[in-house]
Amino acid sequence: MKSSTIIIVVLAVALLFAVIKILTTSKQALAGSNADAVISNIMTRTSIRSYTDEPLTDSQIETLLRAGMAAPSAVNKQPWKFVVVKNKPILQQIADSLPNTRLSSAVCAIVVCGDMTKTLDGVAREFWIHDCSAATENILLAAHALELGAVWAGIFPNPDRVDKLRGLIDLSETQIPLCVIAIGHPAENPTPKDKWNQENYRVIE
Amino acid sequence: MKSSTIIIVVLAVALLFAVIKILTTSKQALAGSNADAVISNIMTRTSIRSYTDEPLTDSQIETLLRAGMAAPSAVNKQPWKFVVVKNKPILQQIADSLPNTRLSSAVCAIVVCGDMTKTLDGVAREFWIHDCSAATENILLAAHALELGAVWAGIFPNPDRVDKLRGLIDLSETQIPLCVIAIGHPAENPTPKDKWNQENYRVIE
Repeated sequence: MKSSTIIIVVLAVALLFAVIKILTTSKQALAGSNADAVISNIMTRTSIRSYTDEPLTDSQIETLLRAGMAAPSAVNKQPWKFVVVKNKPILQQIADSLPNTRLSSAVCAIVVCGDMTKTLDGVAREFWIHDCSAATENILLAAHALELGAVWAGIFPNPDRVDKLRGLIDLSETQIPLCVIAIGHPAENPTPKDKWNQENYRVIE
Repeated sequence: MKSSTIIIVVLAVALLFAVIKILTTSKQALAGSNADAVISNIMTRTSIRSYTDEPLTDSQIETLLRAGMAAPSAVNKQPWKFVVVKNKPILQQIADSLPNTRLSSAVCAIVVCGDMTKTLDGVAREFWIHDCSAATENILLAAHALELGAVWAGIFPNPDRVDKLRGLIDLSETQIPLCVIAIGHPAENPTPKDKWNQENYRVIE
């Protein structure tokens, strides 16, 4: 066999393998990595309380709101309202009303509120707290995925915090602020806490 | 130029491009897709109430518990206990105690409980509900990423549900069941709800 024929055969076989690799790896890597990406995002999210001056884009804010509204809610009542605060003086006043939370550098906040006109009746009314907390966690996870930093500051049921916030962002009587999520581009890079604790679960076989 | 030389050159150039493609695509696709994977996982999660008989692996259960324990909690109190129920008769009794939730085919349930020995004091005690709800949402999102199906059934503050569940899984007085997450391999494929609603947010510029 001529040496040129050997080279052609070797190159053709190598090219075939390369094309197969391209066609399969990409899909496999993406499918396999989707679960890893989601789990890793959950495990590495941590509270960020210091931010740069860079504002959020409208697209980023919409993604965060879509994530919040995708949360599950009891009987699909979606008993929530989201108030996006970009106004700097109001952000400063919110920060001042939450003295231990160091939110003053945030460029944006989302106040997650329960909408009492959409809750279930009776004792199930309180499920709005579960629903709005799930929405809050979705927003925190989406922010982390977008390489933003965020922190959850609890408001309800602290009556002073509820009243102050209600006034600052002009909430109606039927809306209750559950929490403030301060958001921005991170200006700190804390190590995520390892909170795995085998004493915190048991199995009934 | 001989035709064999032309073929060698063409093959070599094609191989070079293929190798470059292999070396670059994979990394780019992964980096770019991490945020997409996380957001997509949030947007496509939906309640699954029908499951196959296939059990969960220990590794899957540990991943779900790790996701739950990675949730944020007020002042990092981690005021939670997770009870994994694999015992079929107890699962059936839990299902029977929640008649409208169709959980009887679940192969596993995680009962997310508040640990009252670890809460904050005063009115901030109630933040355990926020914390355990965030943990629940993390578990639901991790389950979806692992291609499992799950559904959140609210327990607290319904006193009948709390009492029944407390007895079934032998909870101490300091532990309050917030919810039951039924989990299994999906035997249904419902379309995720589009819950985006522009009336559910406003912006303060």
